[in-house]
Amino acid sequence: MEKVLRINVGAENGPVATIEELGAYAGLGGRAMTTTVVCNEVPPNCHPLGPENKLVFSPGLMAGSAAASSGRISVGCKSPLTGTIKESNSGGTGGQFMARLGYAAIIIEGERKTDDLWKIVITKDAVMFEKCNEYRMFSNYPLVAALQEKYGMEPGYVTIGTAGEMLMCNSTICFTDPEGRATRHAGRGGVGAVMGSKGIKAIVLDPAGTPVIRKPKNAEAFKAASRAFAQGLSSHPVCGTGLPTYGTNVLVNILNEAGGLPTKNFSVGRFEGADKICAETMVEIQKRRGGNPTHGCHRGCIMKCSGICVDENGEFVSKQPEYETVWSHGAHCGVDDLDKIILCDRLEDDYGLDTIETGAALGVLMEAGALKWGDIDGIIAMIHEIGKGTPMGRILGAGTATTARCFGIERAPVVKGQAMPAYDPRAVKGQGVTYATTTMGADHTAGYAVATNILGCGGKTDPLSAEGQAEISRNLQIATAAIDATGYCLFTAFALLDQPETMQALVDTINAMYDLNMSLDDVTELGKDILRKERAFNAAAGFTKAHDRLPLYFSRESVAPHNVRWDVSDEDLDSVFNF
Amino acid sequence: MEKVLRINVGAENGPVATIEELGAYAGLGGRAMTTTVVCNEVPPNCHPLGPENKLVFSPGLMAGSAAASSGRISVGCKSPLTGTIKESNSGGTGGQFMARLGYAAIIIEGERKTDDLWKIVITKDAVMFEKCNEYRMFSNYPLVAALQEKYGMEPGYVTIGTAGEMLMCNSTICFTDPEGRATRHAGRGGVGAVMGSKGIKAIVLDPAGTPVIRKPKNAEAFKAASRAFAQGLSSHPVCGTGLPTYGTNVLVNILNEAGGLPTKNFSVGRFEGADKICAETMVEIQKRRGGNPTHGCHRGCIMKCSGICVDENGEFVSKQPEYETVWSHGAHCGVDDLDKIILCDRLEDDYGLDTIETGAALGVLMEAGALKWGDIDGIIAMIHEIGKGTPMGRILGAGTATTARCFGIERAPVVKGQAMPAYDPRAVKGQGVTYATTTMGADHTAGYAVATNILGCGGKTDPLSAEGQAEISRNLQIATAAIDATGYCLFTAFALLDQPETMQALVDTINAMYDLNMSLDDVTELGKDILRKERAFNAAAGFTKAHDRLPLYFSRESVAPHNVRWDVSDEDLDSVFNF
Repeated sequence: MEKVLRINVGAENGPVATIEELGAYAGLGGRAMTTTVVCNEVPPNCHPLGPENKLVFSPGLMAGSAAASSGRISVGCKSPLTGTIKESNSGGTGGQFMARLGYAAIIIEGERKTDDLWKIVITKDAVMFEKCNEYRMFSNYPLVAALQEKYGMEPGYVTIGTAGEMLMCNSTICFTDPEGRATRHAGRGGVGAVMGSKGIKAIVLDPAGTPVIRKPKNAEAFKAASRAFAQGLSSHPVCGTGLPTYGTNVLVNILNEAGGLPTKNFSVGRFEGADKICAETMVEIQKRRGGNPTHGCHRGCIMKCSGICVDENGEFVSKQPEYETVWSHGAHCGVDDLDKIILCDRLEDDYGLDTIETGAALGVLMEAGALKWGDIDGIIAMIHEIGKGTPMGRILGAGTATTARCFGIERAPVVKGQAMPAYDPRAVKGQGVTYATTTMGADHTAGYAVATNILGCGGKTDPLSAEGQAEISRNLQIATAAIDATGYCLFTAFALLDQPETMQALVDTINAMYDLNMSLDDVTELGKDILRKERAFNAAAGFTKAHDRLPLYFSRESVAPHNVRWDVSDEDLDSVFNF
Repeated sequence: MEKVLRINVGAENGPVATIEELGAYAGLGGRAMTTTVVCNEVPPNCHPLGPENKLVFSPGLMAGSAAASSGRISVGCKSPLTGTIKESNSGGTGGQFMARLGYAAIIIEGERKTDDLWKIVITKDAVMFEKCNEYRMFSNYPLVAALQEKYGMEPGYVTIGTAGEMLMCNSTICFTDPEGRATRHAGRGGVGAVMGSKGIKAIVLDPAGTPVIRKPKNAEAFKAASRAFAQGLSSHPVCGTGLPTYGTNVLVNILNEAGGLPTKNFSVGRFEGADKICAETMVEIQKRRGGNPTHGCHRGCIMKCSGICVDENGEFVSKQPEYETVWSHGAHCGVDDLDKIILCDRLEDDYGLDTIETGAALGVLMEAGALKWGDIDGIIAMIHEIGKGTPMGRILGAGTATTARCFGIERAPVVKGQAMPAYDPRAVKGQGVTYATTTMGADHTAGYAVATNILGCGGKTDPLSAEGQAEISRNLQIATAAIDATGYCLFTAFALLDQPETMQALVDTINAMYDLNMSLDDVTELGKDILRKERAFNAAAGFTKAHDRLPLYFSRESVAPHNVRWDVSDEDLDSVFNF
């Protein structure tokens, strides 16, 4: 990870690669890298699909190491969905293979001169560009299959589906999983469209000939630290038991019980069909059919929350959908057909669509009366419309806020143009603070207050009370930014919040890997620094505290069963970044 | 004009009227009234289609008087198109009849409780509400015809077409002209959707039994001042000759010559088909057919720029379309078929669509490749899609920025979500300053620097030079805000800029009407006060100087024939409101 690969798509005869020293970007990884590059090199007032925007890939600092659950990758740019800075995070093979190939960052920049599509093949010895117009309007699964036919099963593939090619605000960048499936996505913020705007359809990361594991500078210390870290994860009830057994969809019953499962476009906090779409039901069905609820999205993960879903004949359909995907197509749309929700997950992975944003937009379409509540076949038809770019598909593909705008709907559950995921902010107020204030637009992972508000990790709070939520969100946002820089999966945070020794072990792994002497305070400072940079970018792009708010209707309309409104004060919201 | 009519649409059994004293709103008219009410009563962070927004109608201070060209009406609210405060201005009978009925403001507020549509009948003695679901999805022409059948030809009708009913961001409020045609519109900013969101389909303004002309307090002085004012207008080449002879479309040849006629989505500043769509051609055809190029949009107008267009059989088709309408469907889309452009004007008046925003969006659709340049029949088909609310119609009806967003297009000529009209900001830089900085989103009328940059009214400047343009725009924006408060047509400004004695006569008419002693400085201060209020509203809604900018591509791409880029500095733009 000693190099930056800079790809200029604006050269005369197609893209040109330059390999640079790290220079000012030395010591950065993941979100710290993507945010710093975007802040340094992208004018905040540019159009996200214009030539001035850049697309930055960066593995976390620990990617490719032997540390548990450390293989995440960050994708950064100015977001077409929100207009803010964006870091979108994914599992899969991308982070580890980039790290093995020695790249701390890949920066795609410039203005494409033609409509040609290109693929980039990166090996340990070379960076090659080939036109690939034969893949035009390929979706991710057939695209990956075609690439695997040519380049084999060993490389990792980074691709965009039809949505990214059509420059949709709701499009993802796909990273293949360890078995070569098109299942892992940098989902949020429309990063796929930025890749599409640069004319790049696929990146082949071929790690052949590189060491399988990056060596730490201090091997003994690393071994001890990473063992302690792994043990910490394994012994925690969420990281060691809940996630491996059920995946993230374990949250359906938990949020339903808490009255925070947004149902029918956030009109109520409980869904009568919850038991039909919950993880317990999904796992039971999958076990019977020969699916696998315990699967890692990247090699070396020990939380293994990703899972594999098969149909009645045992044929692969999709990865086990995340809780947020089950929610967005399920409770949010009044749907309780689990198999068809899994099919939606597959279709959206295939077209390259954010499953949260897509489902959220579909719920708004139902609110508008253009689709009936619970009409899962209508939903599936709509997903195909998006993937094919019909006019209705263009609306939905532009995201939830645009769908609401086109249909004259006030009740769009969005902040800064991005849809809120699966937690009603009135019933999980800490999460509401994160939605309102994060630099990313409504995003659950940016400061996952569900952990403290609902799961009781790192202390207990009343999720219905406004009190103290700003502080909870602030601390989580700082910690998250730092974790997103390391390459560790954010789900390690459940253990980190509860077990100081696991937190220390995490810091020790980084110190041993790089022969550093960072303290916990240093890690906190890293998180703060990332957030400060992101805030400055957004401010220059025109975002103010007026944008750090939930839509007004959350303050006006209470949500059953607790009949609570949004009542966190503006002063509290404005205090989140007071560091 | 001693009363405020407040209509609460949220009462149990349908709308309820309250008639109030002017109170704090005494002395205000037009834009001064709408802006003050919106600033006082509408939370800047509300959703434009939510219950907290209000729709305010206000005739100018001089409406209903015998002064020439004084009958304009202002419509104010928070705009669904831009999210800013909005004042949208119209001719027709609305301003004069509201004034005759004694209302300085009608404020429509509250949250409709059902989906019923209502009409409001206002006579000198009563305000009546009637359900009118039988008019659901009526467009303006048949709606007005049905209302005229019931209430006769004497009342003025204020209506929304299907676009407003469908809550489209691009929808207008229609005011009938003196002959009862649905031709005059508060066009910009989606005010029709706000009326639709309140469930009001039509307002009948029945002036029967009211004095035809409002009496001035000082009759002698008024007579002298208004005569001097009228003479000033008549003797000016633009107000007294150009506009009555040709209408605003006289600008096609002028802007084409100046290289500032945006062609094919602002890709070049001259249109080869200009001579086929210019006013000289239109007037010649219309004279031959029996149309009328010299017609006033309201009684007492002496500039009479509105005109009447007929088909080959002499049958009425539409009003003479404005220059901006001819541009948006003509040069902007590569269309040179004048008769079909006039048909577009008719269709958009009928559905209740802003002709600028609609044409601008269609040009962006062409840029996206979804419609061919010059395909006027395709344009007509698209207008029907908007009017009927198909998915493609929903996209276009949401405006130019949304159309660009849905199709992944950077080149959207918009500021604050509103499309630029018919003047390339690179070739008419003073106009660019107005687009960038006005409180309204890109709007030519807010500070019509074309007057000085191109027409040479009020001095001469180089339209291609950045120098001095901020000052020009500032002064025009201040003067315009004041004029918009008086009810005088903005086109009086050509004479006002050139003839100090006409400016003084205008002030004298107001003084005589109300027995005041205002100076020119007082009028300037009124304009500044309006702008300050609007700026404060926008700032609270989240607008910053980052929003007072043109899209970046205007700085990157030069426009032929002068090959000029946008080069007004940020410092200059930020100086516009330094008062």
